[in-house]
Amino acid sequence: MPRFVKDVSCKTGLPPGTIIHCGEKKTEEVKITLIHYDGDRFEEKELTRVEDAFPFKDRPTVTWLNIAGLHRTEIIEKAGDIVGLHPLLLEDIVTMGQRPKVEDFGDYIFVVLKMLHDGEESGEVEEEQISLVLGSSHVITFQERENVVFRPVVDRLKNGKGRIRTSGADYLAYALIDAVVDRYFVVLEGLGEKIELIEDNLVADPSRNALRKLQELKREMLFLRRSVWSLREVLSFLERGESSLIRKTTRIYFKDVYDHAIQVIDTVETFREMLSGMLDIYLSSMSNRLNEVMKVLTIIATIFIPLTFIAGVYGMNFKFMPELEWRWGYPFIWTVMVSMASAMIIYFWKKKWF
Amino acid sequence: MPRFVKDVSCKTGLPPGTIIHCGEKKTEEVKITLIHYDGDRFEEKELTRVEDAFPFKDRPTVTWLNIAGLHRTEIIEKAGDIVGLHPLLLEDIVTMGQRPKVEDFGDYIFVVLKMLHDGEESGEVEEEQISLVLGSSHVITFQERENVVFRPVVDRLKNGKGRIRTSGADYLAYALIDAVVDRYFVVLEGLGEKIELIEDNLVADPSRNALRKLQELKREMLFLRRSVWSLREVLSFLERGESSLIRKTTRIYFKDVYDHAIQVIDTVETFREMLSGMLDIYLSSMSNRLNEVMKVLTIIATIFIPLTFIAGVYGMNFKFMPELEWRWGYPFIWTVMVSMASAMIIYFWKKKWF
Amino acid sequence: MPRFVKDVSCKTGLPPGTIIHCGEKKTEEVKITLIHYDGDRFEEKELTRVEDAFPFKDRPTVTWLNIAGLHRTEIIEKAGDIVGLHPLLLEDIVTMGQRPKVEDFGDYIFVVLKMLHDGEESGEVEEEQISLVLGSSHVITFQERENVVFRPVVDRLKNGKGRIRTSGADYLAYALIDAVVDRYFVVLEGLGEKIELIEDNLVADPSRNALRKLQELKREMLFLRRSVWSLREVLSFLERGESSLIRKTTRIYFKDVYDHAIQVIDTVETFREMLSGMLDIYLSSMSNRLNEVMKVLTIIATIFIPLTFIAGVYGMNFKFMPELEWRWGYPFIWTVMVSMASAMIIYFWKKKWF
Amino acid sequence: MPRFVKDVSCKTGLPPGTIIHCGEKKTEEVKITLIHYDGDRFEEKELTRVEDAFPFKDRPTVTWLNIAGLHRTEIIEKAGDIVGLHPLLLEDIVTMGQRPKVEDFGDYIFVVLKMLHDGEESGEVEEEQISLVLGSSHVITFQERENVVFRPVVDRLKNGKGRIRTSGADYLAYALIDAVVDRYFVVLEGLGEKIELIEDNLVADPSRNALRKLQELKREMLFLRRSVWSLREVLSFLERGESSLIRKTTRIYFKDVYDHAIQVIDTVETFREMLSGMLDIYLSSMSNRLNEVMKVLTIIATIFIPLTFIAGVYGMNFKFMPELEWRWGYPFIWTVMVSMASAMIIYFWKKKWF
Amino acid sequence: MPRFVKDVSCKTGLPPGTIIHCGEKKTEEVKITLIHYDGDRFEEKELTRVEDAFPFKDRPTVTWLNIAGLHRTEIIEKAGDIVGLHPLLLEDIVTMGQRPKVEDFGDYIFVVLKMLHDGEESGEVEEEQISLVLGSSHVITFQERENVVFRPVVDRLKNGKGRIRTSGADYLAYALIDAVVDRYFVVLEGLGEKIELIEDNLVADPSRNALRKLQELKREMLFLRRSVWSLREVLSFLERGESSLIRKTTRIYFKDVYDHAIQVIDTVETFREMLSGMLDIYLSSMSNRLNEVMKVLTIIATIFIPLTFIAGVYGMNFKFMPELEWRWGYPFIWTVMVSMASAMIIYFWKKKWF
Repeated sequence: MPRFVKDVSCKTGLPPGTIIHCGEKKTEEVKITLIHYDGDRFEEKELTRVEDAFPFKDRPTVTWLNIAGLHRTEIIEKAGDIVGLHPLLLEDIVTMGQRPKVEDFGDYIFVVLKMLHDGEESGEVEEEQISLVLGSSHVITFQERENVVFRPVVDRLKNGKGRIRTSGADYLAYALIDAVVDRYFVVLEGLGEKIELIEDNLVADPSRNALRKLQELKREMLFLRRSVWSLREVLSFLERGESSLIRKTTRIYFKDVYDHAIQVIDTVETFREMLSGMLDIYLSSMSNRLNEVMKVLTIIATIFIPLTFIAGVYGMNFKFMPELEWRWGYPFIWTVMVSMASAMIIYFWKKKWF
Repeated sequence: MPRFVKDVSCKTGLPPGTIIHCGEKKTEEVKITLIHYDGDRFEEKELTRVEDAFPFKDRPTVTWLNIAGLHRTEIIEKAGDIVGLHPLLLEDIVTMGQRPKVEDFGDYIFVVLKMLHDGEESGEVEEEQISLVLGSSHVITFQERENVVFRPVVDRLKNGKGRIRTSGADYLAYALIDAVVDRYFVVLEGLGEKIELIEDNLVADPSRNALRKLQELKREMLFLRRSVWSLREVLSFLERGESSLIRKTTRIYFKDVYDHAIQVIDTVETFREMLSGMLDIYLSSMSNRLNEVMKVLTIIATIFIPLTFIAGVYGMNFKFMPELEWRWGYPFIWTVMVSMASAMIIYFWKKKWF
Repeated sequence: MPRFVKDVSCKTGLPPGTIIHCGEKKTEEVKITLIHYDGDRFEEKELTRVEDAFPFKDRPTVTWLNIAGLHRTEIIEKAGDIVGLHPLLLEDIVTMGQRPKVEDFGDYIFVVLKMLHDGEESGEVEEEQISLVLGSSHVITFQERENVVFRPVVDRLKNGKGRIRTSGADYLAYALIDAVVDRYFVVLEGLGEKIELIEDNLVADPSRNALRKLQELKREMLFLRRSVWSLREVLSFLERGESSLIRKTTRIYFKDVYDHAIQVIDTVETFREMLSGMLDIYLSSMSNRLNEVMKVLTIIATIFIPLTFIAGVYGMNFKFMPELEWRWGYPFIWTVMVSMASAMIIYFWKKKWF
Repeated sequence: MPRFVKDVSCKTGLPPGTIIHCGEKKTEEVKITLIHYDGDRFEEKELTRVEDAFPFKDRPTVTWLNIAGLHRTEIIEKAGDIVGLHPLLLEDIVTMGQRPKVEDFGDYIFVVLKMLHDGEESGEVEEEQISLVLGSSHVITFQERENVVFRPVVDRLKNGKGRIRTSGADYLAYALIDAVVDRYFVVLEGLGEKIELIEDNLVADPSRNALRKLQELKREMLFLRRSVWSLREVLSFLERGESSLIRKTTRIYFKDVYDHAIQVIDTVETFREMLSGMLDIYLSSMSNRLNEVMKVLTIIATIFIPLTFIAGVYGMNFKFMPELEWRWGYPFIWTVMVSMASAMIIYFWKKKWF
Repeated sequence: MPRFVKDVSCKTGLPPGTIIHCGEKKTEEVKITLIHYDGDRFEEKELTRVEDAFPFKDRPTVTWLNIAGLHRTEIIEKAGDIVGLHPLLLEDIVTMGQRPKVEDFGDYIFVVLKMLHDGEESGEVEEEQISLVLGSSHVITFQERENVVFRPVVDRLKNGKGRIRTSGADYLAYALIDAVVDRYFVVLEGLGEKIELIEDNLVADPSRNALRKLQELKREMLFLRRSVWSLREVLSFLERGESSLIRKTTRIYFKDVYDHAIQVIDTVETFREMLSGMLDIYLSSMSNRLNEVMKVLTIIATIFIPLTFIAGVYGMNFKFMPELEWRWGYPFIWTVMVSMASAMIIYFWKKKWF
């Protein structure tokens, strides 16, 4: 639960635009990668100093600067200086716990995304914040640590597969965002399997443990839902293409990612409703169990309590109890008792209690 | 459950516009049918190669190309070449699990629909994806396998019944979409019957099994609802007639299908609320049963436990128990016990426990 | 339940504009009534052939043609020919199960309404479909069977009461629609009484039967709600007066009917919430009953089980049980048992179990 | 409950604009008060005939005509004649059960409001309908009976306090509406106290009676909510100042009343959620009680049933039962029984059942 | 609870614009602080009379007048005179229980905010009302009592840190509002911890007390939610920058606070859903407990009741009971009883009741 509010209050009281890394440090080293390419060329190199990216700024090629690791804020600040980013934007980049959002600064667009992955240890869905700045001929991405999500895009750039090498910075931004959104499906698939598993468990053995897991999944969904609805807003903005930085030919691709986001939302909402339905099943399973337990008790008690009473009667020590003297008293009383028990059993049988 | 997310992640990591068939293969052969007609003529022929459709493209007649079977993606690509379809569109055609949607590409409109039918084996509602491209004088449809839903339209074309032969490609598109939407009513009727059946069962025998079926139906509804709300959006777009490809005279027909979609939504929402109401009935039936069981137990126990106590008292072996010696002790104690039991029974009777 | 989907699928597969009566036949004969009037004159006559209405079409008076009985579709078609109605509209007229709707065809407005009445036999709210076509100087109405709802309007026309004789066809349409909407209040009043009755029953005797009735009423509400929300849309359209057929002076009257529709919606929604509240009462009544039953059982069992144990102890046959020999054993043990019982009773008293 | 639908159907079948008083008669006499004032003068007089208000109509002063008592419809009609009110408006004035609404007739604005007060006898919130017509230099108000709500406004007029004497008819209308809305806070305060009381009761003694009161309050809220949401719409219209009758300087005052209405809505919605939460508390209190009852039963039964069995065993009359002969049999069996009881008690203690 | 309606009705019946302090008096003294600064200078002084602020009004520097303590209304009125504030605005300032709101008066903007802090004594979230008037070169703030929330802003002004000294009155307003919004995160963090604590308690010991705390937290959330949604509206207005008083460069900062408000809403909504989920856990824990209790009872009763019956049978005093005479009767009956008990135990074991 703490992650819902954890990093939010860490800068309370500081002036706005204060660039302080706010969140868990997920990597030791900061890795700066510079890629620049056009239809013919492709070059990838690792930088030690972010200032080395300056010269590439004004080249006609598309430039992609990727910074993995956000705790050394001076690097972020320098990267911001290269293309003149607003201090508030830099603050957002280093403050974890942002919602996915998009802001149009005129000559660049700033996008915050959440990359999801299944936490290996925790079993919970974890998110990493990815910020992306799209300029006219460059893209700058900021990650919490280097992860594999952008690898396929780099490969496609390297191999010149598809239209990516010839389609400008906005298409690159699209490709990166698409890669992030695609991860949601992987995470959803994992959650879908978990839900199936829990459902089977709930029916087989409606223990309190199953309920706990159900609640945890509901919480995951809550968490995810918050994320995807914001994502949808981001993509809706990009798809509408209100900024001149996104060309008409690229807009149709953003429309495609937008459709994916809608599919993600659909799935999350479906999962939520399925989990609600499972709670109903759980509760009524519990009721069912209680009914069964009570039936057993009632059958046994209803049959034997009257019999015990009869036995009690003839266990009384009154001097004058004619039945006790009677020769066939004992067999007769057995007959009475067996008849009563049989009648009870038939009654319960008819009521379908067995 | 798996169908909610199944095919979605199958292309993760591939570049956009990669045309890979993503979903279950439902037919072995691909069947390509070409129909072209105007007020006077009607011709239907089966093609072995989709390229053979090329010559018909520029004729003044209306041309309808139907491709049943989507796993041979090269056929889809060639069909796309004939009228110059966007790669993303082709990708959508071969990727199952799309939401119903409509996209206006200017000189053609792309529509994805879901055709519903009751799955024979599974008993679940199944859906097949149908894509439709409407150009100025041609319609191209893509189906997962050849199914009967378009048959009545072909027949009307052949027989020249109604205004279909003289009304252009947009009217043909309308007729095809109308045929798809009409299937929803058939499926809903089947679901309506299932709901009625379950309701009767719930009341007669509120077993856990009934609850399971209830939940399955709720899930069907969830599934259906997702589908029909998207469908509504599609039809709303077509009915507004924002594209010049849809003439004013045809718009009124799209308005009619739109009304049908609203009726479908109404019915689905009504079913959903009915299923919710049935859950309430189920849960209170369970409560009722528990109450009944407890009443039986309580009546029996409350009557006999005190009596057994009395019998127990006179079963004690104290030396000096005057009652035991008394001549009328035994009949007297029977009188006492019968009176107590009667009092109890009258009490329960008054409380309406019987 | 079947009525939610009954007639909808009856024309699946037929070409649009096919005019086939789809629904229950509620009358044997078709009755065609023609009324024409202006400020001075009023004439009402029954026609045997709908063609006889033709000559009145171009007169300066207002003409109202009412057709009661929809199964003879050739009559509907001919009526459509008189003023040139669109085939889809004629199809809607003879297809029961339409939602209330309004369509503006330029030179006429087409309105579908539902007239409600309490079904005598079924006890359910039943609806009849009423279609209305408003032209510049004529109104055509189509009913499933002749019913009394339009009678007051005819009387007002005949008597020349109010402004109805001098106010044109749009005012006549208003008067007819107003008459239909007024019926809703009557039906709601009936439902309100039913709800009150059930509520009293629920409290007095929370049987399963009461729950069944509750659910039936909820379903009625569902049904009604669907109807009134559509009605609201229809009236909202008319009240906005977007068509030139509705004059400004008449719009204020449509606004008035619109207000009535809002009141109907308010009432329906209030009823829905009341029924929900009653379900809560029912469920907690059940809980309460269970609590009471369990209290009785627990009090009796808790008092007598220990006593029975004591009696059992002194019913043992051990040779050496000093108490049994003791002169005051028996009275003493009675004292013990009475004290224990009293203690228990005081305990339960304090816990407010009585 | 009846009040939700009571008066609505009372005019079914009558022509629109029929001015018949529809509702309970709350006063015997009709009291007509005429106030006219400007910055310098103030005059208040009671009229016997409403026609006497005519001469004041064209004076430069602001005229306020208040009519308390609506059952003598001829007075309402005459008042309508003075400023030429629409018949539908007059109908609304005398028909109780209207929703708060506003209508702009161009040269006058018609407002219907609900004045709330706590019903002395019924304990329910009661409402009185107040209609207000705002013209360029006059205000006409219609009340069901004379009530105190307008008294402070009259006093302020008389004393010339505030800007009321110099601010025109629209400011007077504002002052009157403000007085009506202020009453809502008083009523809400009363309801808030009731809710607090019920909450305390629910916790102390979760009886069925408390639930009944809870449901009654929920219904009050339903009733109130309907009223305040309509009120909000009315004030929103006035605050937007679309009519030229409301000057810009007065709009800011209407904005203020609008804010009050929002506060009322906030409070009503908060109360509704609180009542929902209280139902949860109630239901879980019931569960808790059942648990407690069952624990008592289980503890007693579980301890004594095995002991009674043991006693029963040694009450058997077998000839050869060696234990019975044994010298220490009786003390030994007591030891056994006490140990068993202690073990049970320890077990329950550990399970925290005490 | 009272705080939901407390102060609202305190001015019922008074003319609008009456400036009466309505709410709890939180400070004895009124503290008036005047700060004026530009890029070069900074001066802070405490005023004894608010009139002393007059001369600073027309200086080119930015002026910030802070008034802490609202019960001496004459001070508020004089402050209002300095810049010509509307009486309704002054009324709002001194009336506690306002919703956060913003009003644009053309040459100044009026903002009402709620500052949250954890109440030390009550443990509840408490709110203080802060009003802020933004003019072209001055800001006036009104607080219920002097609190620390504005301290960091004063410090930044004094030290000239950040762009605050050079950025005009709108930036100062931003800085103050930002400080207030930041407090929400602190309060949310506290609530998050409380929720975690309750959740742990609910699982460990689902007592009625835990439920009470749960309900209290839900109420806090209700309270908070009302506050933050209004806050969102306020910030949305400021961020849209419709007033010329807020320059374009400052708007981006307001956008930032707006984002914070959205985060606050997200968190509040998440908390609300978590609390709902916890209620489900609580209720099913209760059910679970009942099931367990009933199982214990049923096992004990089902095993021993039949055994007691058997013992009872052989406790009967019939003269002719052959078994009693039998040499091995007693051991045999023990064998029967042990077998029965074992069979029961195995049965329950198989049913997984242990």
